[in-house]
Amino acid sequence: MSDRLTAQLAFLDEADKLKSILRGTPLHDGSRRENSGEHSWHIALYALILAEHADRPVDINRVIKMLLIHDLVEIDAGDAPIHGDHDPVEQELIEKAAADRIFGLLPEDQAKDLRTLWDEFEAAETDDAVFAKSLDRVQPVICNLQSGGGSWLDYDVDLAKLEARVGEKVKRGAPSIWQHLSERITKWFTQNGRA
Amino acid sequence: MSDRLTAQLAFLDEADKLKSILRGTPLHDGSRRENSGEHSWHIALYALILAEHADRPVDINRVIKMLLIHDLVEIDAGDAPIHGDHDPVEQELIEKAAADRIFGLLPEDQAKDLRTLWDEFEAAETDDAVFAKSLDRVQPVICNLQSGGGSWLDYDVDLAKLEARVGEKVKRGAPSIWQHLSERITKWFTQNGRA
Repeated sequence: MSDRLTAQLAFLDEADKLKSILRGTPLHDGSRRENSGEHSWHIALYALILAEHADRPVDINRVIKMLLIHDLVEIDAGDAPIHGDHDPVEQELIEKAAADRIFGLLPEDQAKDLRTLWDEFEAAETDDAVFAKSLDRVQPVICNLQSGGGSWLDYDVDLAKLEARVGEKVKRGAPSIWQHLSERITKWFTQNGRA
Repeated sequence: MSDRLTAQLAFLDEADKLKSILRGTPLHDGSRRENSGEHSWHIALYALILAEHADRPVDINRVIKMLLIHDLVEIDAGDAPIHGDHDPVEQELIEKAAADRIFGLLPEDQAKDLRTLWDEFEAAETDDAVFAKSLDRVQPVICNLQSGGGSWLDYDVDLAKLEARVGEKVKRGAPSIWQHLSERITKWFTQNGRA
């Protein structure tokens, strides 16, 4: 049991580094960029609060677990902002190698379980993963709306790009949330000459 | 449903402020103080990984939910470092008023559910709450060990104080974790003339 605990604590020590990975989006008050640790907390809370808006029935406990671990690969791979110009094929290879290393710190059974859960999230095929991805996509939209533009300004995003890159994915798992936000989103992009 | 979603998003907007509440303990690399949002993520991950070390059977999904919401009151009340000199009676009153206000942003059913869960955490009587509290207490110990002293230096803590304020509480819910760490802890306090 002591060897297991040593491995588990090594993993939790490594996880601490996620608090130093900065994302493209700011805090709601615009004071600084969000990090991937606090982002992971926020969207796990999103899941807890917004479960009823999932388009299809989900196991919210699994969704929360997915969201707690979904960004750990960024410790090695960095955050790839959705509106940035990274190569998705290369990014996927880097993230898979990161998953091998980071989940591999855990005892074998847990490493396998969490890797399977992360693979499910990445594949975005099951109802749980589709809803988790929708929350992961919609939270930065709210960060940008609340802070006055955020990464939309930094990456020169227009409404069509947002709909294609983000809206379509949020609507897969949580169409009512996207619908609810659409008036505010359209207003911001129109007022900023980006509609 | 739209009114519910408006209330839920107002709560999640308010929750964002937890990312600006600084704690007494540093990140593992010592680069800055941890905030209560990323701390909440980290200990939810602790729960997911360390569930098997709970002294009594727990519902780990409930423990994770408790940990996701346990510090939200700090948005109004601030963080009260365990080695600080705040008045616990006054702090409790401030935190209860904060819980009234912050959970009260949610639709009534969710406000009631989360308030009940937070009260359970605070009371630290059920097995789930005792284990959740143990994780909340042990994570800062690891932050301090990894960063070279952290809040133990800032608050002039000796081993007897740590045992009384922290060790006893970790041992209630997760004695094997405290046991596992005790050699490293004793070594640090001895080497720093605080044993």
